[in-house]
Amino acid sequence: MNIVQRILKGEKRSIARLITLIEEQSTEATDILKQIYRFTGNAVTIGITGPPGAGKSSIVNQLAKKFRDKNKKVGIIAIDPTSPFTGGAILGDRIRMQDLTLDEDIYIRSMGSRGALGGLSRASYDAVKVLDAAGMDYIIIETVGVGQSEVDIIKLADIVALVLIPGMGDEVQAIKAGVMEIGDIFLVNKSDRDGSDRLVTEIEMNLDLNPNKNVFKPPIIKTVAVTGEGIGELDETINQVYKQLMDNGMLFNKRKERIEQELQELIREIHLKKIITAFSAKIETITDKILKKEIDPYSAANTILEK
Amino acid sequence: MNIVQRILKGEKRSIARLITLIEEQSTEATDILKQIYRFTGNAVTIGITGPPGAGKSSIVNQLAKKFRDKNKKVGIIAIDPTSPFTGGAILGDRIRMQDLTLDEDIYIRSMGSRGALGGLSRASYDAVKVLDAAGMDYIIIETVGVGQSEVDIIKLADIVALVLIPGMGDEVQAIKAGVMEIGDIFLVNKSDRDGSDRLVTEIEMNLDLNPNKNVFKPPIIKTVAVTGEGIGELDETINQVYKQLMDNGMLFNKRKERIEQELQELIREIHLKKIITAFSAKIETITDKILKKEIDPYSAANTILEK
Repeated sequence: MNIVQRILKGEKRSIARLITLIEEQSTEATDILKQIYRFTGNAVTIGITGPPGAGKSSIVNQLAKKFRDKNKKVGIIAIDPTSPFTGGAILGDRIRMQDLTLDEDIYIRSMGSRGALGGLSRASYDAVKVLDAAGMDYIIIETVGVGQSEVDIIKLADIVALVLIPGMGDEVQAIKAGVMEIGDIFLVNKSDRDGSDRLVTEIEMNLDLNPNKNVFKPPIIKTVAVTGEGIGELDETINQVYKQLMDNGMLFNKRKERIEQELQELIREIHLKKIITAFSAKIETITDKILKKEIDPYSAANTILEK
Repeated sequence: MNIVQRILKGEKRSIARLITLIEEQSTEATDILKQIYRFTGNAVTIGITGPPGAGKSSIVNQLAKKFRDKNKKVGIIAIDPTSPFTGGAILGDRIRMQDLTLDEDIYIRSMGSRGALGGLSRASYDAVKVLDAAGMDYIIIETVGVGQSEVDIIKLADIVALVLIPGMGDEVQAIKAGVMEIGDIFLVNKSDRDGSDRLVTEIEMNLDLNPNKNVFKPPIIKTVAVTGEGIGELDETINQVYKQLMDNGMLFNKRKERIEQELQELIREIHLKKIITAFSAKIETITDKILKKEIDPYSAANTILEK
């Protein structure tokens, strides 16, 4: 059996190896991805995001267990900011999820986030495809959500659950424009705390401002992830929302947008390598002129491109 | 007086306005930058980086005061990871530096970091140029150092000071490859703690492995930033190192590399806008084929580019 067949069979070790090849931007990875691409599109991908400390990992943990109770195969991709000072993802090796890794039908992968084009943001797109082709029924993508790029990464999910917690002040108002809009489901976690009802009201008010509210209005669920409260409702809601998004065509549009975006990134990446090589001699000559202040860098870039 | 003249005179409000225009990627900003470019190159730029909690802000604070004692003008750029959930830089508004902002000859700016091409990493390059043209003698760039891109940003400094603290385990060994190499000066901060001598030894051993060690060996300074201990030595060392790097040609090479890199980014940015527009019709057609699994995205990108 070659690696393609082993991945399609869902063999964990081959999945891990391919994702590593993807992270290393190996050409071998692209060859394999080309072959498995037509086997993708069957998994339901769920993005979980929210501010640090909102309890996202606990929710992922509980949700994965819920899916396993129904005998579904689950893939988890945890996207953490990369720390150059520790060499690894900043939150370590997801110790809290260790009890899941013993399950043969759960695959967990921690990936560093990197904003740079051709970097890990593309790798995470590809990793989702690998898990999809490997037969996962659900793929959960968790991001710690500290950078805009990590919020962007979440767009690779069919359904995005945005996790908020009460007691942080005017939470919803503080959230940056464009972030509320990515939520298909809202979770008010740690809802046993004071202020959770107010937070629900705040979210509702915010959602009322959305021009799409008549097509689709995201449900709000109260959870207490550590005890598992509300996770059953989350599971049901995910399946309902998935059907709704499928029926009203929003899922198709999401997937189409995702492919367009991916294609743009691929084109950029391939093209960039070519142009920088093509222009390298010119760049060297003009750099000297910039150093001598004979030309400024902005005019220089335009000069090179106009030729 | 127009904005260019006001910036060259060092007027704070005009500086702030231009940096905002830069962050918004306004074409007006590029026009102004073109005009001020030939007035740059006089400031000494110092990058301060290190893991969270190493005391970088305190060092910046103390160092800025030291420069002011010598009646020098100081610009500070603090680069923080952007939080989409709070709308601002994650560490807030640099409250610790508030006492500095009252000084007319200190300009402090907090900028969010973004890895994306054409995003804030380029903005930070431009912001340094603005402060340089505005007559700052020293420009201090502080990054929180949680992402690789933030470590990369620091390369825009003439001199990089890497801040480490004792008592975090095998600190130096844990640092990712390529990070130790960016340090021109090493600071062992919180050096009143146990283990600071061991940390100095670890750093020395690591620096001995560097193939450049005969050309330039970075000094190591013990500091206690909160009390100001070692900051005088840091100030002297910065000036010594600056002269050394100037004399041995390393500063020239650094600046040359920086311009080359900036030029590459500018070319990419301008070019990308053009190609994505040029290919947008093709992208739409082929997206449908990808959705139908008639072609995979990797082959599709190549097909578009080959035409």
